[in-house]
Amino acid sequence: MALYKKENNTSYTLGITLTIELLKTKPNLVKQVYFHSNFEKKEAYELIVKLCQQHHINIVTSNKVFNVLSSKDNCYVIAEFFKFESNIDNKANHLVLVNPSDSGNLGTIMRSALGFNITNIIIINPGVDCFNPKSIRSSMGAIFHLNIKYFDSFDEYKEQFLPRDFFPFMLKANTKLEDIHSLKREKNYSLIFGNEATGLNDSFLNVGSPIIIKHTNKIDSLNLPIAVSIALYEVSKK
Amino acid sequence: MALYKKENNTSYTLGITLTIELLKTKPNLVKQVYFHSNFEKKEAYELIVKLCQQHHINIVTSNKVFNVLSSKDNCYVIAEFFKFESNIDNKANHLVLVNPSDSGNLGTIMRSALGFNITNIIIINPGVDCFNPKSIRSSMGAIFHLNIKYFDSFDEYKEQFLPRDFFPFMLKANTKLEDIHSLKREKNYSLIFGNEATGLNDSFLNVGSPIIIKHTNKIDSLNLPIAVSIALYEVSKK
Repeated sequence: MALYKKENNTSYTLGITLTIELLKTKPNLVKQVYFHSNFEKKEAYELIVKLCQQHHINIVTSNKVFNVLSSKDNCYVIAEFFKFESNIDNKANHLVLVNPSDSGNLGTIMRSALGFNITNIIIINPGVDCFNPKSIRSSMGAIFHLNIKYFDSFDEYKEQFLPRDFFPFMLKANTKLEDIHSLKREKNYSLIFGNEATGLNDSFLNVGSPIIIKHTNKIDSLNLPIAVSIALYEVSKK
Repeated sequence: MALYKKENNTSYTLGITLTIELLKTKPNLVKQVYFHSNFEKKEAYELIVKLCQQHHINIVTSNKVFNVLSSKDNCYVIAEFFKFESNIDNKANHLVLVNPSDSGNLGTIMRSALGFNITNIIIINPGVDCFNPKSIRSSMGAIFHLNIKYFDSFDEYKEQFLPRDFFPFMLKANTKLEDIHSLKREKNYSLIFGNEATGLNDSFLNVGSPIIIKHTNKIDSLNLPIAVSIALYEVSKK
């Protein structure tokens, strides 16, 4: 039992809610489930035992894994599962994250994306690992309902999914978010966001129709998950 | 030099950006500034020295405070400042947070509020301490530009600031966020949000016009700073 590493082929759900979500959506991927010795034999305990029995998943009672993986005191169950790859649906709208760097942010973005029914997420490398337990935790389990795929460059992604509308979000853009609806030409679109600190570079000014979310000049920029979620909210209006 | 505590009358800005923002906006409140011995004598260093001289603020070089307050390796300057109270502007729009519990979330909300020009924030007790260094950090300095005041109950707040439109955000509401514009009657409004885990209780169904941000049923709810920011975005459209 070691610390989580990006190179590992397994990751972990920390806590009851995430573990139940995993067992319900992707039971085949679960390697084993760990119970803390203080895990109370109540409803959640019984449900997890039942789901594990159904899918022939081994339960190990050991506190060591909790000390290594979880800094929170109230974590009593952890599932170890095999990471998975997903294919991106060409006939769907996409969210494209170029070089995202924060695990917690990525999780929050996944939760919002599922909330606004964008279920295909593309990450352009270098990008943070979506299977980091922090990212899984802040996704609140949304990760198990999404298609997520990494590409080595934006062009590599773009070429495979034409034709579609591309909307890069940039502070240098002129078109306001609320005017995005009149710019839709194709059946599907991709919303594109840059890194937390640096945003998208200027080359994206030549990609599709750049969009800006207007805010006062009292702040430098909106937090990335906030900007993504505001965009998702606006485009998902019928 | 002890750990930060809510009861203390001072708090701390961790890092260059926050410290400069504090020195520029509220220099009178700064008690002293700490430099780490590894703080490089570059542009930021010179600027902070200059600002401290201008305002007769003492600079102490000591690494102890950094070990106690900051878990990040790249923090080389900390300012200690006296907490301040603000008055809420009756002739402005308000953001009301009922029992918020997460410092990082509160900071992110402050940043968004300033970004959408809502500069009066009311927190209903029990609520997380806005001067927690975590909250200051995630506000990216927005806290120094906002009026923030705590009230012991929503009714105590409400009575002092009538008449205005109240919009409690609740999953049980029927009116969609995009329809909020037609509900505005008074000159000013208050957007009201509940706790991260529990939301607003049902009594708020009888307060003003309850509003819902529609999302798919694949998630339980949106993350609180996300929901607040989407609302701020929508209402701030002219």
